[in-house]
Amino acid sequence: MVGAGQLARMTTQAATGLGIGFRVLAASATDSAAQVCAGTVTGDYTSLNDLSAFAAGCDVVTFDHEHVPAPHLAALEQAGRQVRPSAAALRYTQDKLAMRDRLSGLGVPCPRYTPVADEAEVTKAAADWGWPIVLKAVSGGYDGRGVWMCQTPAEAAAVLAHPVRVFAEEHVGFDTELAALVARSPHGQAAAYPVVQTVQRGGVCHEVLAPAPGLPAGRAVQAQRIALELTAELGVTGLLAVEFFSTSGGLLVNELAMRPHNSGHWTIEGARTSQFEQHLRAVLDLPLGDPRATAPCVAMTNVFGGTDPGVYARYTHVMAADPAVKLHLYGKSVRPGRKIGHVTALGDDMPGARERAIRAATYLATGKEPPEASEAPAREAMR
Amino acid sequence: MVGAGQLARMTTQAATGLGIGFRVLAASATDSAAQVCAGTVTGDYTSLNDLSAFAAGCDVVTFDHEHVPAPHLAALEQAGRQVRPSAAALRYTQDKLAMRDRLSGLGVPCPRYTPVADEAEVTKAAADWGWPIVLKAVSGGYDGRGVWMCQTPAEAAAVLAHPVRVFAEEHVGFDTELAALVARSPHGQAAAYPVVQTVQRGGVCHEVLAPAPGLPAGRAVQAQRIALELTAELGVTGLLAVEFFSTSGGLLVNELAMRPHNSGHWTIEGARTSQFEQHLRAVLDLPLGDPRATAPCVAMTNVFGGTDPGVYARYTHVMAADPAVKLHLYGKSVRPGRKIGHVTALGDDMPGARERAIRAATYLATGKEPPEASEAPAREAMR
Repeated sequence: MVGAGQLARMTTQAATGLGIGFRVLAASATDSAAQVCAGTVTGDYTSLNDLSAFAAGCDVVTFDHEHVPAPHLAALEQAGRQVRPSAAALRYTQDKLAMRDRLSGLGVPCPRYTPVADEAEVTKAAADWGWPIVLKAVSGGYDGRGVWMCQTPAEAAAVLAHPVRVFAEEHVGFDTELAALVARSPHGQAAAYPVVQTVQRGGVCHEVLAPAPGLPAGRAVQAQRIALELTAELGVTGLLAVEFFSTSGGLLVNELAMRPHNSGHWTIEGARTSQFEQHLRAVLDLPLGDPRATAPCVAMTNVFGGTDPGVYARYTHVMAADPAVKLHLYGKSVRPGRKIGHVTALGDDMPGARERAIRAATYLATGKEPPEASEAPAREAMR
Repeated sequence: MVGAGQLARMTTQAATGLGIGFRVLAASATDSAAQVCAGTVTGDYTSLNDLSAFAAGCDVVTFDHEHVPAPHLAALEQAGRQVRPSAAALRYTQDKLAMRDRLSGLGVPCPRYTPVADEAEVTKAAADWGWPIVLKAVSGGYDGRGVWMCQTPAEAAAVLAHPVRVFAEEHVGFDTELAALVARSPHGQAAAYPVVQTVQRGGVCHEVLAPAPGLPAGRAVQAQRIALELTAELGVTGLLAVEFFSTSGGLLVNELAMRPHNSGHWTIEGARTSQFEQHLRAVLDLPLGDPRATAPCVAMTNVFGGTDPGVYARYTHVMAADPAVKLHLYGKSVRPGRKIGHVTALGDDMPGARERAIRAATYLATGKEPPEASEAPAREAMR
């Protein structure tokens, strides 16, 4: 696995259980996965030499992020390496405009979008769709961001002033955000997890509720169908996470990821087969595992660093307060806003599971009780 | 953790989830846990120098086996290292005669036993208890065994001819074998898992059924009480597994282990807190996790090497046949009779879960269907 963040770290645990030889390509020995994986190789994923040397020792190469340069992926494939998902599939996670074009060509519902070169083109789009307008980097971004919600032409101009290719999207007034996680193997076997609700704040996932509360069965099946269709159409091997806006008018695809995804962390305890095991089974062309849930309701809450780095001092209190909540810490140093772990609570009812997960994550991060745990908003501003 | 077998390997997975820095002292880099644990130190657990150097880098030292020489454990404690369980507690896993004496002193029911120095003393015991007589090594053994069932004085004489100190026990005609797994922290917090049935063949655990089918609630509680009492009386920190004979006359303690135990592998998927996480929480004096089961019935079957080493070729078929069965392979080379992994099946009824686990384990080991999976005997000859 190229990349050694928390996704690779949790994949290491799954590989150990399956008895699969597993290596990670880490930027540094202190990376989250490098701390725990005996098969750590240090190298630079932007260097074709480092990638090639790493791949030479592997039966299959996969990824915990989508940032490996596309020409390098193509070069690995030309050298006969098994790259899963393939360079052709990964293109649609690396070039968001190509993704929008491809999905539109397939008739998959997306927000309205258009390439824009200057402020005038943004203003023209806004004349049709209204403000705010969402600008998205085609690839990458700046200041750690790739999505900007612009309320005015001046805000759009500020984004356009950066040397980053962007396109414009309508701002979607959604009811909830959903994610459908599916896996597909080279053989073409596929498996779909229950559709979940994600709760985002400031463009960052804070919570995942599985299954999505109150979601009509028809819409859940539609989300799974779109995700399964995309795995086949885009030739995905491994996991595909599809993020949706669920609106009064129907589902719209927001983003794609072809790797284990934050919206699937609940599966470690909450599904018969975790997303990390499933990704390994899929990219190794092993039969897929049962994706069914192990409990009626599963709530996952991310843990973000706060101003006090003493997470482990609070850890004890969280364990004492709720012996059944599952803590996952990623071995990352604490910085305000940095995702350093997650907690999962299983239960018979979603409000109860959700309150337990929020309480544990809030206390871990801040040492405080959540202000209104039982009234945490289900509907959040989009970004 | 001193020792790097499969118990340390599975503890590595738990430590990764908890975000705990974890090291193993391995005899070789090819040991089961050494293959996967980034914190592997190579050394000899019979060398005080190696142990001391390893312990110097750890907050707490614990064990995946009971073979560290007792004087070394005492020396580590005298040097101020936190050894958990303590040398005083581990004594009762290292000296089976001391264990019998201590348990008898506490009034805990055990098989009748007596120290024996020669064939005449064995024959004298047999005059009271009848043949066969069980001879047990006080510590260690030979040819990889420490327990011998002797049908005749000649068989006893053959055991006594070896330079191994033994004692004699009555052969117990039991109905089933049970195991009670509990944990205790230095604070004195304790947690008890559901009592399980173990199915042994030739003195080796083949299956574990959780909870023990048909066990009256009163006897299950008695087993948990004995195990909890022993953790306190023996000063155990970490896990304590107590193996019982369940007879028409009541429970008798057979063996003790103070570490993760084969009878607890089912807890990885089958309990809210796995025994590996629980052991870490206990020895680190963290609050203990919820030991409750996640499914009505859990069946675990060990996978033993057969004559054909091609386990991974059969692996695919097992995954395809039962997407919900959980496979655990230990990274060990295949030798006939060697424990190389286990499989776990969760279900609503025990016969169904058991048949699935047996089928998967048998096929992995041999490439064949079990002969009479649904009629596997629940009562086995003792050894």
